[in-house]
Amino acid sequence: MMKTAIVGASGYSGEELVRLLSRHPQVELALVSSRSLVGKPLVEVMPKFRGLVPAELTFSDSDPEALAARSDIDVFFLALPHGVAAEFALPLVKAGHKVIDLSADFRLGCPVRYEEFYGKAHPAPDMLDQAAYVIPEITPAGWESAPLIASPGCYPTSVIAPLVPLLRAGIVSTKGIVANAMSGVSGAGKKLAEAYLYCERNESAKAYGLPKHRHLSEIEEQLSTAAGSDVVIQFNPHLAPMQRGIASTITVPAAKPDLAALYAAWNAAFAERPFIGILPSGTTPDTAHVSGTNRLDMSAVYDERTGNFIITSAEDNLVKGASGQAVQIMNLWLGFNETDGLL
Amino acid sequence: MMKTAIVGASGYSGEELVRLLSRHPQVELALVSSRSLVGKPLVEVMPKFRGLVPAELTFSDSDPEALAARSDIDVFFLALPHGVAAEFALPLVKAGHKVIDLSADFRLGCPVRYEEFYGKAHPAPDMLDQAAYVIPEITPAGWESAPLIASPGCYPTSVIAPLVPLLRAGIVSTKGIVANAMSGVSGAGKKLAEAYLYCERNESAKAYGLPKHRHLSEIEEQLSTAAGSDVVIQFNPHLAPMQRGIASTITVPAAKPDLAALYAAWNAAFAERPFIGILPSGTTPDTAHVSGTNRLDMSAVYDERTGNFIITSAEDNLVKGASGQAVQIMNLWLGFNETDGLL
Amino acid sequence: MMKTAIVGASGYSGEELVRLLSRHPQVELALVSSRSLVGKPLVEVMPKFRGLVPAELTFSDSDPEALAARSDIDVFFLALPHGVAAEFALPLVKAGHKVIDLSADFRLGCPVRYEEFYGKAHPAPDMLDQAAYVIPEITPAGWESAPLIASPGCYPTSVIAPLVPLLRAGIVSTKGIVANAMSGVSGAGKKLAEAYLYCERNESAKAYGLPKHRHLSEIEEQLSTAAGSDVVIQFNPHLAPMQRGIASTITVPAAKPDLAALYAAWNAAFAERPFIGILPSGTTPDTAHVSGTNRLDMSAVYDERTGNFIITSAEDNLVKGASGQAVQIMNLWLGFNETDGLL
Amino acid sequence: MMKTAIVGASGYSGEELVRLLSRHPQVELALVSSRSLVGKPLVEVMPKFRGLVPAELTFSDSDPEALAARSDIDVFFLALPHGVAAEFALPLVKAGHKVIDLSADFRLGCPVRYEEFYGKAHPAPDMLDQAAYVIPEITPAGWESAPLIASPGCYPTSVIAPLVPLLRAGIVSTKGIVANAMSGVSGAGKKLAEAYLYCERNESAKAYGLPKHRHLSEIEEQLSTAAGSDVVIQFNPHLAPMQRGIASTITVPAAKPDLAALYAAWNAAFAERPFIGILPSGTTPDTAHVSGTNRLDMSAVYDERTGNFIITSAEDNLVKGASGQAVQIMNLWLGFNETDGLL
Repeated sequence: MMKTAIVGASGYSGEELVRLLSRHPQVELALVSSRSLVGKPLVEVMPKFRGLVPAELTFSDSDPEALAARSDIDVFFLALPHGVAAEFALPLVKAGHKVIDLSADFRLGCPVRYEEFYGKAHPAPDMLDQAAYVIPEITPAGWESAPLIASPGCYPTSVIAPLVPLLRAGIVSTKGIVANAMSGVSGAGKKLAEAYLYCERNESAKAYGLPKHRHLSEIEEQLSTAAGSDVVIQFNPHLAPMQRGIASTITVPAAKPDLAALYAAWNAAFAERPFIGILPSGTTPDTAHVSGTNRLDMSAVYDERTGNFIITSAEDNLVKGASGQAVQIMNLWLGFNETDGLL
Repeated sequence: MMKTAIVGASGYSGEELVRLLSRHPQVELALVSSRSLVGKPLVEVMPKFRGLVPAELTFSDSDPEALAARSDIDVFFLALPHGVAAEFALPLVKAGHKVIDLSADFRLGCPVRYEEFYGKAHPAPDMLDQAAYVIPEITPAGWESAPLIASPGCYPTSVIAPLVPLLRAGIVSTKGIVANAMSGVSGAGKKLAEAYLYCERNESAKAYGLPKHRHLSEIEEQLSTAAGSDVVIQFNPHLAPMQRGIASTITVPAAKPDLAALYAAWNAAFAERPFIGILPSGTTPDTAHVSGTNRLDMSAVYDERTGNFIITSAEDNLVKGASGQAVQIMNLWLGFNETDGLL
Repeated sequence: MMKTAIVGASGYSGEELVRLLSRHPQVELALVSSRSLVGKPLVEVMPKFRGLVPAELTFSDSDPEALAARSDIDVFFLALPHGVAAEFALPLVKAGHKVIDLSADFRLGCPVRYEEFYGKAHPAPDMLDQAAYVIPEITPAGWESAPLIASPGCYPTSVIAPLVPLLRAGIVSTKGIVANAMSGVSGAGKKLAEAYLYCERNESAKAYGLPKHRHLSEIEEQLSTAAGSDVVIQFNPHLAPMQRGIASTITVPAAKPDLAALYAAWNAAFAERPFIGILPSGTTPDTAHVSGTNRLDMSAVYDERTGNFIITSAEDNLVKGASGQAVQIMNLWLGFNETDGLL
Repeated sequence: MMKTAIVGASGYSGEELVRLLSRHPQVELALVSSRSLVGKPLVEVMPKFRGLVPAELTFSDSDPEALAARSDIDVFFLALPHGVAAEFALPLVKAGHKVIDLSADFRLGCPVRYEEFYGKAHPAPDMLDQAAYVIPEITPAGWESAPLIASPGCYPTSVIAPLVPLLRAGIVSTKGIVANAMSGVSGAGKKLAEAYLYCERNESAKAYGLPKHRHLSEIEEQLSTAAGSDVVIQFNPHLAPMQRGIASTITVPAAKPDLAALYAAWNAAFAERPFIGILPSGTTPDTAHVSGTNRLDMSAVYDERTGNFIITSAEDNLVKGASGQAVQIMNLWLGFNETDGLL
């Protein structure tokens, strides 16, 4: 069996990668690394995996050179904080490993854009150029030849996937797009901050990150590519009192006020794709229905009164929004069934 | 002490009225009626009020004539399902009682609009004409002379209150308004339906009621009055996995792209109003911070990239969104301190 | 592949059986029946299974004779309300099918006991006699020859599994056992009752079913068999505001005040069992760590001050507490790996 | 109006004291102190109090001498971590202020017991001697002359209050008492630790602090006094996934197997007490029904099979379990109505 490794495995997307890779029929989870947890058995840090991962699997140190030297490992998943991935990506790619990065560091096409949104110069512009941003159902073929795959952000997947086919088909306008999204608390990461204490988040719904959330950088880049022109959107994220899930609601003026055409564009784009659920108009996606799965459900209605489509989508932020999509990418990259380990 | 009654007291807004009126320093809760609970002691049906309401307070029948004959009662709160209120409102008003209706039945200015949104002919167009729709911080003086006050819907308060001063002052455009809102489950009422079971709502976030939720009828009427022209908006409601709270996020093109002017309009409109919290730009309202209170918090940012203001608000759907606002209306109507029983 | 069927598939344990059987590597879910949902596609009723079960799988009628005539089906899982199973079990067994019953109808050894606790005469005393009550880690070999297997109740598994090895080894007293348990709301079933509405269960923790919960019937029978004498216990169940999980805390006087001996008894009883987690003394089981898995975690401490052991356990009430254990039983009964479809 | 101060106001019981004292009709909240929040406006740290506390109320430093010199303040509430209170209590009492301590530091009668359970020598044994431990419904008259009142712990109130009248009346045995309790997460305090993150506590129910939780020290002291002999109990606390509430279930052998006598003892002990709810046998207390109130509900059943009473109780851990009881004590101490500010 091919071997995988998770670098920076201590957060929630790291945990989700452990869950998916440890039960993947085609690969083995051979290594987990974390600077803060070196030497600790994984099952001690993540008790929910008792009986599901080997008791001997302990955290290695996150040392780029040592990891790059691991010729036995085929795929490295980077689950590191933003700004750190390049330190690992460069030596790993150089040593010939396949790398799937879950951070934002290689998602954009342009270092200037990266600096605008992330506040620092891009550490590896050449790699940025070679990296491919992949939502499997959306990204045109050919990405498999990239040396490094940037796995998209959680909110971006929920907004980009429904919109791109509609922009390509000229169904929706490129102007006036307003995307609102609600996320479960795991989307904030396993951060020790008062704001994420149970008693602070319980019964709490609020917007944050207005008006220029970092995810706009990749969302607008992808939408602009699909539209063939600059697309600027309003993106309003919110925290909701739940553990998992992203529900997004996108209001967009119709270019072609034809709901059937919208659904036709979706059906054409997503025919046979195992992880896209196209729900009939009038049935709205529900985070509880996709929780724990790699599925993204979507639906749309048309409002005659405003001339807008309202497009709704739901995903599990840790699965299709992060680690599940990363594993889906690995499956395609390594020639497995797309659904291996994800059903 | 003046006496109050709650007609149709068995739902969540009815419960909230019991909570507020039973501890109000200026009034007494003298009667609760409910067709389905006749004869039952209130504390038996609503155990959380043990020790807070008299043990002898039992549910009366909801009989319009009998209630109208209660000359000892000064104010009647109607917490009935839509379409039922007129049956009670007419005899109560005729008998000289003050009536505050929490249903939608008397909120609109126009029976045609009512029929469009509520699917049936308005049962009492004359009363509709005389009724006043009151958000105390917004509605111009003079409403106190109406014989019946229509207390606004939960979502509408959270959208109308922030927008009206900005429309009046020409700060925001009348076109392209997109209002998204997230509500706790109590907003759906105490309905026995599978959708509202704990296991169905836990971890569930989803849009519903797209694209033409009934609350649009009163929202657009109020916004149009404020704007002096027809305003049509996109209104996207969502259920979130919490018990109480509404968080609304309104994207609206700036007519005057001047955030300071927006805040000045708010400050002017809401100076000294005890239940409006104007938060500095960058601090977003949080349902957990207003839970159990009659306060509506609001905040705004300006996005140079889109030319939009994004206005956020939060309230407790059962308090400022329903029963608290109704009690606030009563306070003003009866000449009490506006905050009596609401702090 | 062998074929399975779920009779009465509409509740939460039915849903959990759908989840487990639809992804089981060795069997196919060929039929789901429900009197109330005849003709409806399963994915329409249970949207979370979109993409995971065939779109054509619709609910059949729950007709005992028709089901018994299905010679293509190897194992029938009965997920019916108590009192109904016999109607199905008898014809199914007679027709030579393997039957695993998730109800309480065949759990006891004695019809008199059934009548005492369930309030009606046992509908099939002969079958009761032949049926085997199986907790795989506990029940002595030989049960595989029974024609019908009674899968234990959720609370019972969490109490019986930790105690039986200790009773057999004389580590704990047979007198003075006090078992307290907290369950998630799914344990109450998908019942349409006000008590199970989200707003009623949120923030609600309470005892219920005191003092003689029905599960005492099977708990005491199993404990008495293990002890070789009559064991009567105090069993105090509680509802907690969570969707899944049972956490049980059992206080029992030590017969042998030797914690090491207790752990030795557990290790001997559960050596190599894939679904038992024996946690070191001082680490307590957590429902969140076993959620979605078929694992039962247990731990114990000894209190010198009282001479009691306090034994704690945690399971997912729908998995190890119901449907997971039923699938585990099927695996052993049909000669599969014990863990097939359960990891 | 008399003036109050909260020393160490930054935690959840501190917040609850702010809520109760700021709306108390007879006192004014004049000062809040916190070493970590010096100079910050209270409404900035605790946004839920916007409009409810003066905008100018800022956190003072927690300096014992400076606080003691505040001759304008009548009552000081200490909401400090254990071990710290003496530093403040001594100078405050010496300066003639009334002091109500919410920590455990002055709850016990005996410094040896304190050292056994809290792991350090008692810092002020003389004050310990003079301090009074007060559950108003239980503690005999005369406590008002103490210079310092120790407000009980959250779990202890829920166990002591129901049991003491029954021990005094010889209704229950002094041996074999097993008390299990479930608490909401706010009971753990506003601690920045991974264990209290939303995603760690959601869906999580678990025992902790076995077998010798610190609260045993005061529970057993109070029960022993009531019984007139040494009482040792089993106390098993649990965390449940809710914000507030304690539900306790106490199994105790009946000394007098007479449920009517038990209820008679309760009725005699608690006649006319406004904050005790005695529920009929068969109705169990529910944390959701007492949330936000100062009420403790209790109920009992008798089990013929075991000869045990099972006594259930529910309270809000922050109100009757901490700050509400402290305010109730203040009311009685200062001669107000017992219910002032608590209804």
